[in-house]
Amino acid sequence: MKSLRQLSPKEIRLLIRKGKWDKPTAGRAMGYAQANLVILPEEYAFDFLLFCQRNPKPCPLLEVLESGKFRTEFMSSDADIRTDIPRYNIYRRGKLESSVKEIKNLWQPDFVTFLLGCSFSFEEALLRSKIPIRHIEENKNVPMYITSILCKSAGMFKGPMVVTMRPIPPDKVSRAVQITSRYASVHGAPVHIGDPSKIGITNIHKPDFGDSVTIKKAEIPVFWACGVTPQAVVMKAKPDLCITHTPGHMFISDLLNEELATF
Amino acid sequence: MKSLRQLSPKEIRLLIRKGKWDKPTAGRAMGYAQANLVILPEEYAFDFLLFCQRNPKPCPLLEVLESGKFRTEFMSSDADIRTDIPRYNIYRRGKLESSVKEIKNLWQPDFVTFLLGCSFSFEEALLRSKIPIRHIEENKNVPMYITSILCKSAGMFKGPMVVTMRPIPPDKVSRAVQITSRYASVHGAPVHIGDPSKIGITNIHKPDFGDSVTIKKAEIPVFWACGVTPQAVVMKAKPDLCITHTPGHMFISDLLNEELATF
Repeated sequence: MKSLRQLSPKEIRLLIRKGKWDKPTAGRAMGYAQANLVILPEEYAFDFLLFCQRNPKPCPLLEVLESGKFRTEFMSSDADIRTDIPRYNIYRRGKLESSVKEIKNLWQPDFVTFLLGCSFSFEEALLRSKIPIRHIEENKNVPMYITSILCKSAGMFKGPMVVTMRPIPPDKVSRAVQITSRYASVHGAPVHIGDPSKIGITNIHKPDFGDSVTIKKAEIPVFWACGVTPQAVVMKAKPDLCITHTPGHMFISDLLNEELATF
Repeated sequence: MKSLRQLSPKEIRLLIRKGKWDKPTAGRAMGYAQANLVILPEEYAFDFLLFCQRNPKPCPLLEVLESGKFRTEFMSSDADIRTDIPRYNIYRRGKLESSVKEIKNLWQPDFVTFLLGCSFSFEEALLRSKIPIRHIEENKNVPMYITSILCKSAGMFKGPMVVTMRPIPPDKVSRAVQITSRYASVHGAPVHIGDPSKIGITNIHKPDFGDSVTIKKAEIPVFWACGVTPQAVVMKAKPDLCITHTPGHMFISDLLNEELATF
């Protein structure tokens, strides 16, 4: 029998669909793009789509399913968005109501589904180029910070950009910029390099989400836009109903990370 | 007095606003990005925004103004979309009704405005790298072709991709790809290189729009997605009302082409 590490995206999605697997997806189906999920009723869909268009670094759209559609078309030909994600968070008016393994019974014909790129894709590319990723080395969550950089607002959706931080040795910063520039659809190039106070971060050792990681002597903190941004913005806007993946429990697509690279 | 060639984007827009200039904008405000215009009533806006999201090469969105807004926010801080474009085409149910110099009297509070990137931006970058642009050398319009490449549809918006063709010497094709790759928000890298029949073009000397240009011995026809695509798709969808710029009479923004380059 195949070990879990060897399963294809489709095989993992089938396990998930049958309710046999509901764990975080990091390290699964290596090489394939994973995606953040946001489902909103149609009345909010135009403004959220516009918010993503205006803020492509924190909100890199990979696929949008029109009202009522629950089958993906581009990221996979056979995925069902109601069952194929390991865990879902249900938010009503911005408050977490429950965390569930499928949403068939909650599905509404006016639901619009957004799948957004995730930094797992560019981290794999960084690792392939021997650029160290501290939170992976230290077996932690990536540190995330709420910044003073304001997103461009769209209708009810507005708020600060959330960023991730990876400490990079001085001789590798340039290469890290080059590599992540290729992945515009998964947050792209850094939004800030160096002095955290310039983007409103007062204590680099106290992230707002995730874990603090070691910054070695001479290493430069490099900041990328983070997929937590759209979720924070949606929660703040308090739509009547919003369904997301549970953090870390992503949609696993059939697209190779390499297919997302722009050049 | 300044010659027309020396005028800034703002100075040209003011002339246009006062009704003192209604000519094609090619070669004006060199270095600054120009944009295609599509205005649609709100009922069509989500589907058109989604069409652009799904087809970024032919439909590179630079700015979207929410329902009723006629002041640009990102491409210029003081432009009025109702008056600052040299000529507008008014289409009703897909048919050209008239061509006018301003649309103040036609403005509706439910109008959503889309500004899309234009190939002038990357042509300037090609010329800076000494890559010849045949239709400019021959003082013609760029040749455009309807292809067999289907756009990803969104609601009522669907149809084939329209491309432009520039013949490129073999030793410069690679460089042309590199340069235009930087301009993802103005059509980006070529969609096809070589054999026109592979994308449904039966006679390269009979373009569907624009003019035929000379293809010299050994030159390779290189095809880029064209901003005529969204216009063709909108006309085919026959919305009750749609306002565009008159071909060649673009919106001149305050953004430098270089600011649009992704890296």
